[in-house]
Amino acid sequence: MDVNVLLFPDFETLDAFGPVEVLGRIDECCLHFVSANGGIIKSSQGVAILTEPLEKVDCSGVLLVPGGEGTRYLINDNMFIEKLSDIALQSQYCLTVCTGSALLAKANMLNGFKATSNKRAFDWVQSVNSEVEWISHARWVVDGKFYTSSGVSAGIDMALGFISDRFGITKAKELAQSIEYIWNSNKEADLFAK
Amino acid sequence: MDVNVLLFPDFETLDAFGPVEVLGRIDECCLHFVSANGGIIKSSQGVAILTEPLEKVDCSGVLLVPGGEGTRYLINDNMFIEKLSDIALQSQYCLTVCTGSALLAKANMLNGFKATSNKRAFDWVQSVNSEVEWISHARWVVDGKFYTSSGVSAGIDMALGFISDRFGITKAKELAQSIEYIWNSNKEADLFAK
Repeated sequence: MDVNVLLFPDFETLDAFGPVEVLGRIDECCLHFVSANGGIIKSSQGVAILTEPLEKVDCSGVLLVPGGEGTRYLINDNMFIEKLSDIALQSQYCLTVCTGSALLAKANMLNGFKATSNKRAFDWVQSVNSEVEWISHARWVVDGKFYTSSGVSAGIDMALGFISDRFGITKAKELAQSIEYIWNSNKEADLFAK
Repeated sequence: MDVNVLLFPDFETLDAFGPVEVLGRIDECCLHFVSANGGIIKSSQGVAILTEPLEKVDCSGVLLVPGGEGTRYLINDNMFIEKLSDIALQSQYCLTVCTGSALLAKANMLNGFKATSNKRAFDWVQSVNSEVEWISHARWVVDGKFYTSSGVSAGIDMALGFISDRFGITKAKELAQSIEYIWNSNKEADLFAK
């Protein structure tokens, strides 16, 4: 299963690399780091990642969209949102972390679906598209092919939840154990909701 | 305060980018991604990072050494271990995650100091240097300028502990809250010890 990690300038480091750590440990997953035009992309914490251009990868597998400061201006970038819409439609599963869900919402992919986001950015994310059923109390939300998580570290919990749904709870628990991670495995348990 | 994140082929993604997420959110920290010779370095999960060569950075601040499969052959690379020894001596603080402590131990930096590592690789790490006081039950250990953590996700807890020691517990708690992370703030609480 191909996993395309969609990066953009000022993405939040752990939003991407928490789930990458989890999915990258599964033999069944083949990770690709992609961006709109390829090349070096820098996270908000200054990590410079080499990426492939979107048009060069197979988009039929899993799409992972992190959040971060970069989402604040990307929602106004029509060309990016159109590309995102194209890939999201082709992808079997779409996973977002933090404000990554604002991008999918802007692309009208989440209309009529339940979704969540970072609780500190929730008002802004909600304002992007009112046709999404925004869930204000959830560590992560699954609806159809969409997995949307709360802020930053919640992406690790969601990725383990995704593994559990695809490959079984035993594999997810073993994986959490192997990275010495205390998995918040209940997606409804949200300590950070208002 | 300069933070040098020392990368090498097959480092473990979250070992580096968990602490990077934490330290990169502190205005006082300036992060640099470095490797022995600079250029692109790939993690075990296939993330390709652009790095600066070691000789071009100021090594007087914080050194962060991740673990991962790459440490298994690096402990036999005398030139790397010598370079590591040089930087570690110059650095005000040395932080390791997972089997990163095996590298510092091989460089004889931890002789007479308390230190820990991933509990799944503990026997191997211990075998690298018996003059280290290896602690088998600890989320992370602080001794002098050395902070050594358990496996992978424990690096996030340790980085928050480092922030707490330098900038106060309130700042560390605020930071954990901002990344919606459930901080295991007690360094003696180790759920993954045998």
